Amino acid sequence: MYYIGVDLGGTSIKVGLITDKGDIINKVSGPTEVEKGAEGIINSITYLVKKVIEEVNIPIELIKAVGVGIPGVSNNHGLVYFASNLFWKNIPLGELLEEKLKLRVFIDNDATVAAVAEFFKGVTRGTNNSIFLTIGTGLGGGLIINKKVYSGSHGIGTEMGHIVIGENFYDCSCGKNGCWETYVSATAMIKYCGKLLKEGNESILNSLINGDTSSLNAKLIFDCAAKGDEVASLAVDRMKKYLAIGLGNLINIFDPEIIAIGGGVSGAGSFLLRNLKDEVGKYIYVKGMNVTEIALAKLGNDAGIIGSGMYAKMKLEE
Amino acid sequence: MYYIGVDLGGTSIKVGLITDKGDIINKVSGPTEVEKGAEGIINSITYLVKKVIEEVNIPIELIKAVGVGIPGVSNNHGLVYFASNLFWKNIPLGELLEEKLKLRVFIDNDATVAAVAEFFKGVTRGTNNSIFLTIGTGLGGGLIINKKVYSGSHGIGTEMGHIVIGENFYDCSCGKNGCWETYVSATAMIKYCGKLLKEGNESILNSLINGDTSSLNAKLIFDCAAKGDEVASLAVDRMKKYLAIGLGNLINIFDPEIIAIGGGVSGAGSFLLRNLKDEVGKYIYVKGMNVTEIALAKLGNDAGIIGSGMYAKMKLEE
Repeated sequence: MYYIGVDLGGTSIKVGLITDKGDIINKVSGPTEVEKGAEGIINSITYLVKKVIEEVNIPIELIKAVGVGIPGVSNNHGLVYFASNLFWKNIPLGELLEEKLKLRVFIDNDATVAAVAEFFKGVTRGTNNSIFLTIGTGLGGGLIINKKVYSGSHGIGTEMGHIVIGENFYDCSCGKNGCWETYVSATAMIKYCGKLLKEGNESILNSLINGDTSSLNAKLIFDCAAKGDEVASLAVDRMKKYLAIGLGNLINIFDPEIIAIGGGVSGAGSFLLRNLKDEVGKYIYVKGMNVTEIALAKLGNDAGIIGSGMYAKMKLEE
Repeated sequence: MYYIGVDLGGTSIKVGLITDKGDIINKVSGPTEVEKGAEGIINSITYLVKKVIEEVNIPIELIKAVGVGIPGVSNNHGLVYFASNLFWKNIPLGELLEEKLKLRVFIDNDATVAAVAEFFKGVTRGTNNSIFLTIGTGLGGGLIINKKVYSGSHGIGTEMGHIVIGENFYDCSCGKNGCWETYVSATAMIKYCGKLLKEGNESILNSLINGDTSSLNAKLIFDCAAKGDEVASLAVDRMKKYLAIGLGNLINIFDPEIIAIGGGVSGAGSFLLRNLKDEVGKYIYVKGMNVTEIALAKLGNDAGIIGSGMYAKMKLEE
């Protein structure tokens, strides 16, 4: 039997035909074309799903279900509450796709399906309880509990980025203050670095961005910190301090075997992980039990299609 | 079949013989006598377990397992890392009790077994995902996920009281700063009220405690706030603000059907719950989805024995 995984992003739609072990048989993709609206995007998904099946001549009867990872929040019934990049609000994506495809459709957040991908084919494989975090412009999370994906009673859980952990100098895009993502995302690092530069601190960053703080990016900040730049180092240290606080919070709640970190910021790799576990240890309630592994996520571009396909499998088996 | 529930507290040991539906057939109790040390306490538990069975003439073969709720932290194998009130460190309670009783023994935190009690006989009954919080001198938590008790991969999870949510004016007893319990526990309210009084604020509390801030307690603060006292109201408002922030955090992570609040502070009842759900709504990521019920826990004194007995049942069936 096979599953279809749909990775719906703000710029592209990737669709994969997946075995029940999470191996990709075929994949196709196309542009999202946000300006076409929900109906246009749903037609594109339908077209790509049919194409990915037809190209390899697999009978539709062998497809058990379709999973869709969305850049937003949906409920258990496939209703997308919002997906900012797509300008969607209250789109019954599950229902509409089921009508068109005549297949069961399961929908969840892109971070949640990436957690599923890591569980089947990546770094959290074989564990019972794991957390996946994707750190980029924001911070998203996915949870595997007792080897099953967990999204909450109504499908709106695992919004790890919006745990309040303090009072911050700027508000989160969600309207609250102190959300974890406002301390550890790429956006957070850029804002904090920008603040230090505007306060007149000397930095090699100044010449690299020609004084234009809108040109800052997380990679540049990590690179300059690695070279010993003080402003960049302050920004990286602050990010890692609050990353450790949030990881400590999650460990004190979940006590998972492993936390996997993916997303753009995870590109800083070993520089990000250096001393991180010791720093996390400061925030763990049960002293001497700093036992949760912290690792970089393993899967790259295919995480979305593998994860959404395997998500559909998990939900069908519930 | 029957289960034994042991509620091991700092002052008393309560033991119940429980049906597989969570009904109490018989219960006995005795003093903890902390000064006797682990061996003495384990002998007392053994004596009480035998007594609770013998008094009702139930053959030992009908007892499936023993659950123990402890005032501390243990791992999946019944090793108690610490239990401050008992002055215990690294006591292999599960192993020692199994030897003496010749029965399977399962051990967890008192808040976790109380969560199980509420799930079988209390306010979270019938739900899939629920959180139980006990707010007293500290803040403890228990989790039910997909109708199963969850304590983490190593048994050290659900330490909700030690989620860092800000920077506070005093450190937590665990050594960290900013733990949720340092904002919302009875201790937190007393410390904050004491601080305001020491800063010279007028309050009816001053005369009630004869200027001795060590006589403050949470009930007095709630009562004075209900009468309109400004200092007491500030302390209650602060507590409720941070209670809402923490509840919002838990909802953004777990999206449970219900959160039940027990413990001494829950004695403030409707005064505690008043406007709380609206306040929590401010911190929920998915706007308009303020759908988690917040309720007072239903079970009183018997929560410990029912919960630990039913905990043993749940673990045996895993």
